[in-house]
Amino acid sequence: METKPQTDFVRARRMHERGRYDEATIHAVLDAAPVCHVGHLIDGRPVVIPTFHWRDGDVVYWHGSAASRMLRANARGEEVCLTATLLDGFVLARSGFHHSVNYRAAMCFGVPRLVTDTAEKLGALKGFMERLFPGRWDGLRPITAQELKATSVLALTISEASAKLRDAPPGDDPGDETWPIWGGVLPVHLAAGAPQPDRYATADQLPPATPFT
Amino acid sequence: METKPQTDFVRARRMHERGRYDEATIHAVLDAAPVCHVGHLIDGRPVVIPTFHWRDGDVVYWHGSAASRMLRANARGEEVCLTATLLDGFVLARSGFHHSVNYRAAMCFGVPRLVTDTAEKLGALKGFMERLFPGRWDGLRPITAQELKATSVLALTISEASAKLRDAPPGDDPGDETWPIWGGVLPVHLAAGAPQPDRYATADQLPPATPFT
Repeated sequence: METKPQTDFVRARRMHERGRYDEATIHAVLDAAPVCHVGHLIDGRPVVIPTFHWRDGDVVYWHGSAASRMLRANARGEEVCLTATLLDGFVLARSGFHHSVNYRAAMCFGVPRLVTDTAEKLGALKGFMERLFPGRWDGLRPITAQELKATSVLALTISEASAKLRDAPPGDDPGDETWPIWGGVLPVHLAAGAPQPDRYATADQLPPATPFT
Repeated sequence: METKPQTDFVRARRMHERGRYDEATIHAVLDAAPVCHVGHLIDGRPVVIPTFHWRDGDVVYWHGSAASRMLRANARGEEVCLTATLLDGFVLARSGFHHSVNYRAAMCFGVPRLVTDTAEKLGALKGFMERLFPGRWDGLRPITAQELKATSVLALTISEASAKLRDAPPGDDPGDETWPIWGGVLPVHLAAGAPQPDRYATADQLPPATPFT
């Protein structure tokens, strides 16, 4: 598996033992996270917007309304930072200082490109649906030319990236372990609730599996 | 409840019916989200970092190592964007175009301030622990002067903010509702796994409740 150039910019400064720069790790975090946060500049000010993303090889996609201020800003040829984070557990130590969190985060940099080719755009949108609900795309009312035009798709070829992971019990200071308070990990994960069919769904129609759960 | 100035900058452009600007809504989203993403500039480049946050009135706090590049950047008197997002459900329509997501997101702008007063810093860190594990702080091995010095706390008085919420079934186009495929909402939420005591925890010590679940 190719290793990303570990530029000085993305090199983890703090807790550098948690830093990872290989594509397999970065891609795995991106694929496991339903949502990412894209940071970009609007009027010179940093703006962070949550959005869904999906990945094809070294390209991360997101989408939105063609009229969206975010999407238009992202299409201007300026660098963005796309960060995807998964919270895996609360780490409880015997001192406040050593409390921590188990998590997976990937931070990707690059200049996004507006996908203008119709076939590529259609393929990307289908890829997005397939990531969430495999097989659903072909059963849907087909997308219209007007809907496709009203949708912008951004493609980010990752130019720099890093991941940061923690998956461990607390790291108490020597001597603190026997302080009389519980220590360990409280794991958390995204879970599915009961599907809520709308009033048009019929009894013979089944919901797909809930993604990321 | 006071209403935030709805500046032109934070006004929702798209899906403006989802935009909310009152403090109660913005605070509720911040309080419900375990993690936020802070966007700031480093070397003129947008960088988005996940972190834990907590709130006291109109002030949002986060913390980290005093040696952290992020924390040092945040203390330079430049504006940041702090966004907290909760994913509540996947919204499945009969057309790809009307697929959506139920979510709560709050986006806050302001210039963070490094908390330098020792009493304020201590109070803020205790407030953070209380948010996660009420009552735990007083049972911990007390924080040392050295640990307090090694920890930076940032305080952001929110100067502009907006929230965006969706909590509804799919909004299919008229005529699409009877397309022969399931439509509705697949709810998701953060759930707790079984607590994992570390090898020093004793049988008489009980874990606290898992926050945000």
